[in-house]
Amino acid sequence: MLTDIEIAQQATLIPIDQLAKKIGLKEEEFIPYGRDKAKVEIDTSNPKGKLILVTATSGMPAGSGKTTTSIALAQALQKLGESACLALREPSLGPSFGMKGGAAGGGYSQVVPMESINLHFTGDFHAITAANNLLAALIDNAKHQGQVELKEVTWRRVLDVNDRSLRDIVTGLGGLANGTPAQTGFDITAASELMAIICLADGESDLRARLDRLVVGIKKDGSAYTCGELGATGALMALLKDAMLPNLVQTLEGVPAFVHGGPFANIAHGCNSVAATRAALKLADWAITEAGFGSDLGAEKFYDIKCRLTGLQPAATVLVTSLKALKWHGGVALPEIGKPNMEALKAGLPNLRAHIKNLQNFGQQVVVSLNHFFGDPEDEIEVVRNECKALGAKFAVSDGFAKGGEGAVDVAKELIEAVKEGSQPLQFSYNLDQTVLEKIQEVNTKVYGGKDVEFSPAAQKDLAKIDALGFSKLPICIAKTPFSLSHEPGWKGAPKDFTLPVQRLILNAGAGFIVVTTGAIMRMPGLPKKPAAYSIDVVNGKFVGLS
Amino acid sequence: MLTDIEIAQQATLIPIDQLAKKIGLKEEEFIPYGRDKAKVEIDTSNPKGKLILVTATSGMPAGSGKTTTSIALAQALQKLGESACLALREPSLGPSFGMKGGAAGGGYSQVVPMESINLHFTGDFHAITAANNLLAALIDNAKHQGQVELKEVTWRRVLDVNDRSLRDIVTGLGGLANGTPAQTGFDITAASELMAIICLADGESDLRARLDRLVVGIKKDGSAYTCGELGATGALMALLKDAMLPNLVQTLEGVPAFVHGGPFANIAHGCNSVAATRAALKLADWAITEAGFGSDLGAEKFYDIKCRLTGLQPAATVLVTSLKALKWHGGVALPEIGKPNMEALKAGLPNLRAHIKNLQNFGQQVVVSLNHFFGDPEDEIEVVRNECKALGAKFAVSDGFAKGGEGAVDVAKELIEAVKEGSQPLQFSYNLDQTVLEKIQEVNTKVYGGKDVEFSPAAQKDLAKIDALGFSKLPICIAKTPFSLSHEPGWKGAPKDFTLPVQRLILNAGAGFIVVTTGAIMRMPGLPKKPAAYSIDVVNGKFVGLS
Repeated sequence: MLTDIEIAQQATLIPIDQLAKKIGLKEEEFIPYGRDKAKVEIDTSNPKGKLILVTATSGMPAGSGKTTTSIALAQALQKLGESACLALREPSLGPSFGMKGGAAGGGYSQVVPMESINLHFTGDFHAITAANNLLAALIDNAKHQGQVELKEVTWRRVLDVNDRSLRDIVTGLGGLANGTPAQTGFDITAASELMAIICLADGESDLRARLDRLVVGIKKDGSAYTCGELGATGALMALLKDAMLPNLVQTLEGVPAFVHGGPFANIAHGCNSVAATRAALKLADWAITEAGFGSDLGAEKFYDIKCRLTGLQPAATVLVTSLKALKWHGGVALPEIGKPNMEALKAGLPNLRAHIKNLQNFGQQVVVSLNHFFGDPEDEIEVVRNECKALGAKFAVSDGFAKGGEGAVDVAKELIEAVKEGSQPLQFSYNLDQTVLEKIQEVNTKVYGGKDVEFSPAAQKDLAKIDALGFSKLPICIAKTPFSLSHEPGWKGAPKDFTLPVQRLILNAGAGFIVVTTGAIMRMPGLPKKPAAYSIDVVNGKFVGLS
Repeated sequence: MLTDIEIAQQATLIPIDQLAKKIGLKEEEFIPYGRDKAKVEIDTSNPKGKLILVTATSGMPAGSGKTTTSIALAQALQKLGESACLALREPSLGPSFGMKGGAAGGGYSQVVPMESINLHFTGDFHAITAANNLLAALIDNAKHQGQVELKEVTWRRVLDVNDRSLRDIVTGLGGLANGTPAQTGFDITAASELMAIICLADGESDLRARLDRLVVGIKKDGSAYTCGELGATGALMALLKDAMLPNLVQTLEGVPAFVHGGPFANIAHGCNSVAATRAALKLADWAITEAGFGSDLGAEKFYDIKCRLTGLQPAATVLVTSLKALKWHGGVALPEIGKPNMEALKAGLPNLRAHIKNLQNFGQQVVVSLNHFFGDPEDEIEVVRNECKALGAKFAVSDGFAKGGEGAVDVAKELIEAVKEGSQPLQFSYNLDQTVLEKIQEVNTKVYGGKDVEFSPAAQKDLAKIDALGFSKLPICIAKTPFSLSHEPGWKGAPKDFTLPVQRLILNAGAGFIVVTTGAIMRMPGLPKKPAAYSIDVVNGKFVGLS
């Protein structure tokens, strides 16, 4: 069997200028990056497309195949004669060289050039890293030059690498010429507020406004010190100008794909950029997008943050699951999840049920796409199919990994049917006017299945600060484990009536949300015992080891 | 008067694919980055060009105009019907947002698109930053996982930003999950050994060999721990693959220019990449390149390190000077250097003389190019002209800033004459077989004008280590102030018979040289009171404030 990178390298790509012309772009509307990528700058008003969100049931360590399904689905729609376009997140270098690997789909459902997409691509992550760290240097410099007195610098630095040693550091050692000692740290670029800003900014003037109100520290008098007040907005606009433009690539079957922005789905909202989604909606009849993790994480934030902000209305939502994922949530250990086990499957169904209900509560038509693995028993598939039907969701099996678009034609047909039947206008989990606590309570009860919310003393203090600074009308972005609908990674299936513990509230005034942490949140991953880096190389001018 | 960026924005650029074809590139030999930049991948054997080095007399705070002169000269050669191509260094984001500004030439002698060149360009600096910091994370991870026991980690992290707070830091705080505490720091990317490696590597297999032997730490038994032994070479090869390819752009007058690599001229060797130089030599009859600072810094290293390594033989060297620079070295204070002052000029001539002699000692024909400023008195120019003639050097006035190529036609004519007369084969300052101390002595007496060399106790220990590790046959790369031929920034003109104090010796086994420091060396600049960042912005879709 061929590896992902071998399949990708055998593909014949449509030259990017041909692809751009094929989807209706004029020469001045795209900027080629190499012969297989382009940045696109178009007027996205009057979109023609229907927006489809792809999400998944609760995570398991092996991954759900959401990106692969999204790509397969777009390819299937094209096979059916429809015009489709993808809007996906960009992979991060950290996981590519760490444990998880890349994020360009898999098998015969990949976006290409996968090596470039998984490495530097068009430099968006690097631009965000540079802008983030210039801002950090300007803050420290303003302090050093005696131009501002701060009680606290809240802005941290970032790098696109998995480096545990940088989580907690002391800077400014070695004497006065090096500034004053400060305890701080680096997050991974994908977890940065600038990444969230790039993804949520709706055009250049919105980007400027977000940068202006970005809170980078607290002044001696307790008021917020912003990027705008520091005077750094212009420099950041210059560094982020190109990074704001969505990147056009293609799938293995020549479907256009915008791959742009890659915010974490816990600490941030986990969706590709608004710019990419709008471009896909402008250029095709079907715009397929995904959001990180499950309906409780990326999808909730997609609706409650991104759609609320932009007015976007998805036409339907595809829920990716697999027999493996459901058996894992039925309590089977990882090495056993591939084996027939009807009992475990049935024990895992509550997780599927909860996710379907969640999506229906938002008003969405739901199509469940079962990610097919070799040897999946037919009777088990039937159980899942019947469960979905009983809940009023569509169902189909996807074999996109092995067969590309052909493998997802059934999913595409169900999707077309679901869209014909029509979703409701989005019903958000909460109103912005509610208090921060109320908003968290709404998500906890409506989406997670919990009962109460408990604030730590630190969270209570955070809340008081956020109220005092006048930011309590922002939406919330809850950081939570993807392995459970609850905050406890070990609680499988559909846990009920638990108390959600809130550890901290973090104001992201530029991104425009309040991050709510519910446990230890990883903002900077570490490397495993055998990092993927050790397998990656260039041999005879070709990349090897990327996945 | 228009600013540099206004002039650059008014220019009509040759589309990059047309420019590439015009200089003989086939479609598969270049990869477009936007419509005005390309990475070039060609066989550079059998070059047709003559190599011309541009250097300068000793520095002054206002800068010497070396890049502007290089560009003007290439444009002048083109005006004379010659085929010319530039090979220049890439600017660093740090100074662009700090004090110095960009580095794409000035006035009517610029490389364009200057905004892109001064910002992210084709991402080379970002790729080097990412590779450098992945290596740091892999080293710390190998320690953390108990896979290696190190007495000392010598590898530091880098960022392309001026950030004094990162010079001296402690990492790995916050408990065992974050590794073990370590004192370390960040350098600016331009000062990194990886930058030097990218610039000196002569093709892909040489790059791999350099990465393999890169020393990143010292093991418990005192032996060197290398990037190859760690197993990180392949991952770095993947991250640096595109960064190794030279970037093609153009001057305001349409002369092709390779802008690639940007190592510091003190801590590293200060020349653009070997790849860029070879590409320029392959594609044009005249390849104009520059090296950082004066004959004592960039030029010495260009000959003794880069040319020795590659076998390149420059046909002549252009020495940039100005009445201002010479008056500064004649003892005049900065605000006064623009005023007529024959006495000060004459007092500064020993600096010019010493630089001419230095270049002649290497065997070079020398063309002095006087960078013209409005109001330069004719009689003062005549004094410089006569001085040059008396020393057997050519002389011409350059007005490239105000007039573009037209302003440097006289310099080009003198250059053509000098090349006809012919340089000698390069006579290096030292042989590789000499001891490290002897090599330093040779450069100090032959190039700097000093007499003795004194090692600090730390340098003596460093030397013993380097000898023990078996690296004493490497060339040396002396880090020294650019403001004097000596190690003392305040010693103007041509100081004589001083003792050069050596502080430390730093092994750069991958770059293939030993850095010799002679004073406090800045590896990470700080920001000034009013950073350039505060003037930079995007207004109506156009960059402003870049210089």
